[in-house]
Amino acid sequence: MKRRKRLSAKSYVEGVLKGDRVILSQAITLIESSLDLDQNLGDEVMDAILPYTGKSIRIGVTGVPGVGKSTFIEQFGLLLVEKGFKVAVLAVDPSSQSSRGSILGDKTRMEELSMDQRAYIRPSPAGTTLGGVSAKTREAMLLCEAAGFDVILIETVGVGQSEIAVKAMVDFFLLLMLAGAGDELQGIKKGIVEMCDALVVNKADGENIDEAKKAKRVYSNALHLFPMRENGWSPKVLTCSGLKGNGLPEVWEVILQYKSMMLSNGYFEGNRSKQRVSWLNEHAKYLLETAFYKNESVQSVLASSLQEVESGKTSAIKVARALVKLFINQETENEE
Amino acid sequence: MKRRKRLSAKSYVEGVLKGDRVILSQAITLIESSLDLDQNLGDEVMDAILPYTGKSIRIGVTGVPGVGKSTFIEQFGLLLVEKGFKVAVLAVDPSSQSSRGSILGDKTRMEELSMDQRAYIRPSPAGTTLGGVSAKTREAMLLCEAAGFDVILIETVGVGQSEIAVKAMVDFFLLLMLAGAGDELQGIKKGIVEMCDALVVNKADGENIDEAKKAKRVYSNALHLFPMRENGWSPKVLTCSGLKGNGLPEVWEVILQYKSMMLSNGYFEGNRSKQRVSWLNEHAKYLLETAFYKNESVQSVLASSLQEVESGKTSAIKVARALVKLFINQETENEE
Repeated sequence: MKRRKRLSAKSYVEGVLKGDRVILSQAITLIESSLDLDQNLGDEVMDAILPYTGKSIRIGVTGVPGVGKSTFIEQFGLLLVEKGFKVAVLAVDPSSQSSRGSILGDKTRMEELSMDQRAYIRPSPAGTTLGGVSAKTREAMLLCEAAGFDVILIETVGVGQSEIAVKAMVDFFLLLMLAGAGDELQGIKKGIVEMCDALVVNKADGENIDEAKKAKRVYSNALHLFPMRENGWSPKVLTCSGLKGNGLPEVWEVILQYKSMMLSNGYFEGNRSKQRVSWLNEHAKYLLETAFYKNESVQSVLASSLQEVESGKTSAIKVARALVKLFINQETENEE
Repeated sequence: MKRRKRLSAKSYVEGVLKGDRVILSQAITLIESSLDLDQNLGDEVMDAILPYTGKSIRIGVTGVPGVGKSTFIEQFGLLLVEKGFKVAVLAVDPSSQSSRGSILGDKTRMEELSMDQRAYIRPSPAGTTLGGVSAKTREAMLLCEAAGFDVILIETVGVGQSEIAVKAMVDFFLLLMLAGAGDELQGIKKGIVEMCDALVVNKADGENIDEAKKAKRVYSNALHLFPMRENGWSPKVLTCSGLKGNGLPEVWEVILQYKSMMLSNGYFEGNRSKQRVSWLNEHAKYLLETAFYKNESVQSVLASSLQEVESGKTSAIKVARALVKLFINQETENEE
């Protein structure tokens, strides 16, 4: 592992609040670390920056691989920085460790946006569980807010779990679609449509324009079949071209319209309140699991019973039960 | 909630071992329950049936929505029951709670197979976390094995996390694909291809046959780019039609070929050994989390601090830390 210079909590906090991008990156690396020393320092930094968070608009962007998320986010991000906003892009992709890109090779990702001084792009944190990845993404989001970013775009890939995780941390959730690719193949399950605030038909350019417009009509009709939402918003259907840029200003208009409506009817804050509670729960689970595996007795019994579990002589369920019991008792002895 | 009759552990065990399908279903419902009483009883049942498990071949089937998984599994299952096997079908789909079927409505699922006396179909357990769903699916799989099922088909949907969960519980992993639908749209990430033992191009019927054969060639070439696997197996590429049935006997042949090769080179048992360890870890996490939320002090502090977290007055991270600390101490006081 590369040796990394650790700053004091104060230096991290000051650097982040000043908007220093290098220190912001170092602070995110710190909170992503699983070392005890880093975690305690990270907690201190998070506690200090929390009062400076919450002022951005948090936007989730999802859609199946191939829908053009990267291009959309790059062009949308460039539009926003031109409007004078500072834009941060984060990713939630727990599968990214084992599967980098498609079978046909990686594509270039957001080159132009990544070179813009008003933008900040942070790839998906390494992690094996969605819980871990989303805990760290949420903290990265707060660090970006403390560093003065006005718009946070959170990209997610997949059809299910990671969308639920991202929905739980954003104000606005945008689903990118393709015209004519078949609903099922695009993972358009009722649940995902129900959670999106705008459905955007991407790649509406060249010969695709008519198809895209047709798809827009179909989706608009389909969305009317859903019951009215509690917050009074009816999800909007739009077309755009991430590649050519048309339709992107309209997407931003819809987001602003949503924000203004939610601010005035109280649902903006209401949603964030609920999210804080889900954050509490997620974070507790994450801490619990981390403490469990760091416990020395757990590690030692795990090591000694491993062979019997491997061979099937002892049941995995029984050892799991014994370990959890041991952990709960052992931890207190250490405290006393 | 519907009132449910609880049997004695002995009755569940005897019924399952006799292959009584009604009692098998009740036993699965028992282990899916989150009530303390059910969980203790469920543990007892699982401990008793464990010596009778492990004799089936466990097959995972994945592919994006729309690829024809249900039709494939139904026809493949019917082929196997005709060969004299008892076939159980289980599903892992943590998103199934919020998203039942596609936007255009549900389709009929495996009607013919479900009416066959030699087959048993169990839908995805209710659950909000993948960890919970996969813990219960694994136990359901063992119950089916104890009940004498020879082939267990585990269906999963999605592109990422749930495949990893299913890969961790099966002997053979099969990826269904469509010809000409675009790699990216099918979620063909390198990681998923790397974990599959056979890649089957489905819907190879009618006008599609040529396209399917072409796709088979392309995938065969692509798979050759991957390094040789440790277990000596090179993933096979096949075509089939779940609808018409052609190609299905060949899929079964490949699975038998795989099984025989793995049995002779020791990787069959080696893989199951690794899986027992991952099961231990998953189950420990699941138990830990369940105990946490059942803890009365945790519940009480959670209730009393909820409002401050909601309003943002207290940080969710801080409360999570306090709760985890409290849980670890509190639990021991109860034990003493």
